[in-house]
Amino acid sequence: MIDSSSLVERILVRDVRAIARAISKVENDAPHATEILKSLFAHTGRGVTIGVTGAPGSGKSTLVDKLALHYRGLGKTIGILAVDPSSPFSGGAILGDRIRMQGLANDPHVFIRSMATRGNLGGLARATVDAVAVLDAAGYDRILVETVGVGQDEVDIVKTADVSVVVLVPGMGDDIQAIKAGIMEIGEIFVINKAEREGVERTERELIALLEMSERSDGWKPLIIRTVATQNRGIAEFTDAIETYASFRQRESSSMERRVSVAENRLVEMLRERLLRRVLNEALAPGELQELAAAVAARRRDPYSVVEEIGNKVRID
Amino acid sequence: MIDSSSLVERILVRDVRAIARAISKVENDAPHATEILKSLFAHTGRGVTIGVTGAPGSGKSTLVDKLALHYRGLGKTIGILAVDPSSPFSGGAILGDRIRMQGLANDPHVFIRSMATRGNLGGLARATVDAVAVLDAAGYDRILVETVGVGQDEVDIVKTADVSVVVLVPGMGDDIQAIKAGIMEIGEIFVINKAEREGVERTERELIALLEMSERSDGWKPLIIRTVATQNRGIAEFTDAIETYASFRQRESSSMERRVSVAENRLVEMLRERLLRRVLNEALAPGELQELAAAVAARRRDPYSVVEEIGNKVRID
Repeated sequence: MIDSSSLVERILVRDVRAIARAISKVENDAPHATEILKSLFAHTGRGVTIGVTGAPGSGKSTLVDKLALHYRGLGKTIGILAVDPSSPFSGGAILGDRIRMQGLANDPHVFIRSMATRGNLGGLARATVDAVAVLDAAGYDRILVETVGVGQDEVDIVKTADVSVVVLVPGMGDDIQAIKAGIMEIGEIFVINKAEREGVERTERELIALLEMSERSDGWKPLIIRTVATQNRGIAEFTDAIETYASFRQRESSSMERRVSVAENRLVEMLRERLLRRVLNEALAPGELQELAAAVAARRRDPYSVVEEIGNKVRID
Repeated sequence: MIDSSSLVERILVRDVRAIARAISKVENDAPHATEILKSLFAHTGRGVTIGVTGAPGSGKSTLVDKLALHYRGLGKTIGILAVDPSSPFSGGAILGDRIRMQGLANDPHVFIRSMATRGNLGGLARATVDAVAVLDAAGYDRILVETVGVGQDEVDIVKTADVSVVVLVPGMGDDIQAIKAGIMEIGEIFVINKAEREGVERTERELIALLEMSERSDGWKPLIIRTVATQNRGIAEFTDAIETYASFRQRESSSMERRVSVAENRLVEMLRERLLRRVLNEALAPGELQELAAAVAARRRDPYSVVEEIGNKVRID
């Protein structure tokens, strides 16, 4: 028997096992997950959430490790969520290379967790935001959310953070246009990692040129920081940049506007997931979806009529 | 006045303007889009769809261009969909660097189109699959779908293709684990592009090691091809690999199983989008979502109760 209210109490005093259990419930959308989140909600809003994204190979994980170690040196407690896409076929979760984070894994003031995509119902962004809420309610000072890749999922996750960090490496020129389209506009801080490499000047120039093309409505000028995470270089400057932006956000008048927009996206994401699950469970008999899919695959039915037919079972008061 | 049935007739004789118009309708989910897709559905299933994904900087666009040119030399007609993530704030679409495709842009047997994310209702994967259906019905022999990034959206899009291609570049070792988790298992063909670069042997060895760890249920052994797309090297071998896999798929007994799985994912994606749109339009008054989001942002309401309340307006017969 699990008692939700005692779980909530234990989370609020930062009991690591209770936190891990709550995040699992959130991930699996287990019974009581919503009750737990409702109870925790009033305790959220104190920690600063830092979203870090960038292309594979940019050294995000090492950067996040070093950032966490630096914050530990400042006496802050740290939650880390590493969002890993997982196999679409197996549905399994992969811990990635978080194992190497030796300096952090045994620190009782650091909580590390991987989040993975499950099945085709989506909900990774929703689950990650809810996991952040659990860590926030538990009182972690800084919550680092690291995402692999530059897809829409990553954008959705990073834009819900209080501070969004985009990691680049020298010599990405080829695809900087593509990255721009996806994640350039969400970055408050740009880190050029592996800055000892050739091409760092050019990458910085290109980045500055791109940033000059777009102006933010809140007046914030994105900061550019060079780091060599493996050698711990630039990490203090990176931390300062984060804190500078976090202070700016608190003063800044359009801050509420952004919070409303984040809340709206979150409501939409939660609704989307909930509605789909209800319709799949309640409007279809067990196995019916597979039968309909087989009919479509054999071209006996077209998918558009099938979806209309299912949609007709849904009524809105 | 637009007459859907005449639009369908024009698509079936590969009228480029009609095709472009239908894809716009599909993207915007305009009235009649579903009627058009229903009418086209019976004419689909003839073209071979090739999904190409990989990290930014891997040279996907150039590779797709060269592949298209090679197919043109074989007398095939080609449709190209370049799926670009776009800014989550502006909602605008970016054509990326497709402009450089000089050799293709004026060829009447090549149709090129960018697809972009729109707002937070998602639907990019759904719209792309529908656009593929339009091109398929129009009789294009090979439909190339190029996606930027390695997120869930890209995985969703690429796994609906008949042939899935993952593009790597030498020296990605650091994040090969991360890439593996997301897209390794969906690749039937792996291209190591920029193969003139240092580290190609190591990347290939690592790739082989990763592929040996997983076995496919259909018995296909993924092919590894080295290319230097900018110099047109390896493109003939790449084309051969695609055709080899396409033939394998046609013979192979589990082909139907995969088609059913693809159809199921597609139905779910279509349902998800349709349900969300209906609930936002019908269960909420204009401006109500924004008011609720403001209440959540101010912590006057918790998002979980808000979503429950909206969900309670939905009834399923």
